Amino acid sequence: MTEPRDLTIAEASALIADKKLSPVELMQSLLDQSARLEPSLTVWVTMDPDAALEAARAAESTLNQRRSPLHGIPVGIKDIYYTKGVRTTCCSKIFADFVPDYDSAPVARLKQAGAIIIGKTVTTEFACGDPSPTKNPWNAAHTPGGSSSGSAVGTAARFFPTALGSQTGGSILRPGSYNGVVALKPTFGRVSRYGVMPVAWSLDTMGPFTRSVADAALVLNALAGHDPQDHHTSTLPVPDYTKAIGTARSPRIGLLRDFFFERSTPETWASAEAAAKKLADAGAKVEEIRLPEDFDALISVNRILMSVEAAAVHQENFAKRPDDYSPNVRGVIEAGMLTPGPAYVQAQRLRRRFREQMLTLLEGVDVVLSPSTPSPAPEGLGTTGDPVFQSPWTTCGLPALTIPSGLSASGLPMGIQLAAKPFDEETLLSVGHWCEQVLGVALKPPLAG
Amino acid sequence: MTEPRDLTIAEASALIADKKLSPVELMQSLLDQSARLEPSLTVWVTMDPDAALEAARAAESTLNQRRSPLHGIPVGIKDIYYTKGVRTTCCSKIFADFVPDYDSAPVARLKQAGAIIIGKTVTTEFACGDPSPTKNPWNAAHTPGGSSSGSAVGTAARFFPTALGSQTGGSILRPGSYNGVVALKPTFGRVSRYGVMPVAWSLDTMGPFTRSVADAALVLNALAGHDPQDHHTSTLPVPDYTKAIGTARSPRIGLLRDFFFERSTPETWASAEAAAKKLADAGAKVEEIRLPEDFDALISVNRILMSVEAAAVHQENFAKRPDDYSPNVRGVIEAGMLTPGPAYVQAQRLRRRFREQMLTLLEGVDVVLSPSTPSPAPEGLGTTGDPVFQSPWTTCGLPALTIPSGLSASGLPMGIQLAAKPFDEETLLSVGHWCEQVLGVALKPPLAG
Repeated sequence: MTEPRDLTIAEASALIADKKLSPVELMQSLLDQSARLEPSLTVWVTMDPDAALEAARAAESTLNQRRSPLHGIPVGIKDIYYTKGVRTTCCSKIFADFVPDYDSAPVARLKQAGAIIIGKTVTTEFACGDPSPTKNPWNAAHTPGGSSSGSAVGTAARFFPTALGSQTGGSILRPGSYNGVVALKPTFGRVSRYGVMPVAWSLDTMGPFTRSVADAALVLNALAGHDPQDHHTSTLPVPDYTKAIGTARSPRIGLLRDFFFERSTPETWASAEAAAKKLADAGAKVEEIRLPEDFDALISVNRILMSVEAAAVHQENFAKRPDDYSPNVRGVIEAGMLTPGPAYVQAQRLRRRFREQMLTLLEGVDVVLSPSTPSPAPEGLGTTGDPVFQSPWTTCGLPALTIPSGLSASGLPMGIQLAAKPFDEETLLSVGHWCEQVLGVALKPPLAG
Repeated sequence: MTEPRDLTIAEASALIADKKLSPVELMQSLLDQSARLEPSLTVWVTMDPDAALEAARAAESTLNQRRSPLHGIPVGIKDIYYTKGVRTTCCSKIFADFVPDYDSAPVARLKQAGAIIIGKTVTTEFACGDPSPTKNPWNAAHTPGGSSSGSAVGTAARFFPTALGSQTGGSILRPGSYNGVVALKPTFGRVSRYGVMPVAWSLDTMGPFTRSVADAALVLNALAGHDPQDHHTSTLPVPDYTKAIGTARSPRIGLLRDFFFERSTPETWASAEAAAKKLADAGAKVEEIRLPEDFDALISVNRILMSVEAAAVHQENFAKRPDDYSPNVRGVIEAGMLTPGPAYVQAQRLRRRFREQMLTLLEGVDVVLSPSTPSPAPEGLGTTGDPVFQSPWTTCGLPALTIPSGLSASGLPMGIQLAAKPFDEETLLSVGHWCEQVLGVALKPPLAG
């Protein structure tokens, strides 16, 4: 029989609704896994098993007032999301003792939907590039990626069926792919960032790790929507994303060779092409899409926007405690401090131009497809890997999804990345689910049992 | 009998519709005035009387296909608006020989409405602060203001019944008030700036000079609307602004003392208070509105945004031809080049905070009222005067209107400035018209005959 910790949200939720699984059993199964693997994986910053079980008992006792399919579902939360009364460290010395007195909007929405905040997961310091202590469950000699390392690893290793991450460059999809799970970065403006420690206001996007595309739709349902406290959130209506699951037929998929091919290892590229062929064989209309020649300028645009805005975020703290910042985040802040205002303005303008070009390119297809990362998780713990395949979509604010596509010869997960039109998560999830079914790849790290 | 050149648009338009005035007569009357006064006022950069008369004859011959009340109405255009086939110099050495091959969006819309582009008016160099050669028709020893100096002076001196200006700090309402005319800066995003040489993208707003509030509504009807080529333009529907004229009853007016009182000359403040009293006596509900204590930070915010964005606009030309820039605009660009990116980001954030505060303050009133300028047009031609009373509203993107309120002891025009909620030009114009009727001040410089 399936261990409760191996269930997707949809599976667990159905069993809970039918009283065939109690939220307490589910939580206990996850806590057992966590107790067994935490010493080797370092997923948690803060987690109180007693409080988690107490919350599960409360969910069980309120099953009659079940508010959503997330009722009683444990969720890991990256430690940059403010949680009321629970320490939120950003894995930084500066915030080591910070206990917020309110919940960030996404956490509040999850609670409202009946989900249980099981604990706070490790992030790289301030969600930048300094490696975290979290280990990749597939191979501890390889990076788990970042910045949302604890959320990605904990989802893969069955500490929880879902967790929240955040992406400013490639911090959701990259660790998602490195660890063999599904990860979604919604459109910029779809999910409120209120109460989340910013990296860079014009880039930061909140999204979930899950183990199926259908689960990503379930979590997005809870997260999405306008929030007057995040003026970047859209007032566009929020559909029921779960209704998109199962609706795709012969999707139009644009294969991206430019930019991605030359940056991929041969094995990675071959894997993405094989996936595209499999999708075409199953009925997808796959065509190659050409990118603008200067597309790689988007990487610089992302760096300029991120560093200048991060410098503005950290201005005061950095002036007082520069030595309490690690080298990568410090470098980001210092680069931003030295970037002249007009360069920032030009970066904003370039972003807008690229975004318009992307919208035109996306007109003829449902999604574009590429490998999720240039290679599987690189060896060595001195890096969190390269966000270069996420950066263009994050910079243009487009929604993107990674799904597992197989294992490399070295036994590490590989994934394909799909991106879609802004605020068209329905198509992204619908096509993503279709691809997931065709590829039929669900991964579980051997140590997860 | 009234000379055609003294007619407002509404008056001329009604006579033209009734065939009691021909567009050719109207044009001839304006050209006569221009020929008489141009040598002393320097309104024009480019104006061809023969072409203007030819256009008036064309308007006369197409009266049966009259498209709008602007049919056959001559309009002066600030020389930063691109005009197809007509030199657009920005009064800069860099653009001295530039002939655009398309019309800026506002010019295209005016032509579409049947208006006649009579000529291009003097602007300060690149619409910044270096004084222009235009003279104040009330007293040539005093500045006419800027940057839209030719458009303001030409409207006052009966070269045309209306003209377009642009405001980044105080470049429409300030010269409007200095010259005793009505001037409107719409909400940021109400009027397209496509094809207008930018000063600063996040501030620049296009608007008209007229000699009555009703005329401002007529011109705004032609200008307003979404334009995909200016992504800052709103998709909010455009009402018929002329329908707002005459609808105000007992308007709620917030009198602004903070910030404005201490910056006004005693005569200017007394005049604004006297106007407020007259409005209250006529039935307006006038109450004092308190501004945030740090309201004057908005001035720095405006300067930072303007200089950084202007530096981005001029980057290439300035690198090649720095000596072809005059001292003020050069100073703006150099300040922008030296402003760090994070300061720009903080200025954008401060602007947003102030804008939210302003929206709250505006909730209880229809408009806020202040003097239009700290004093009447200052003596001396080395300055264009102080934009400090416009800058807060431009920075926050709120619509603002100046109407004449009387003459100073020295015989110079004074005005009151009204500002309203974003995209609520209907209330601004409706209340502005009501105030105009109550105050009953229409000004004409003696030399205009």
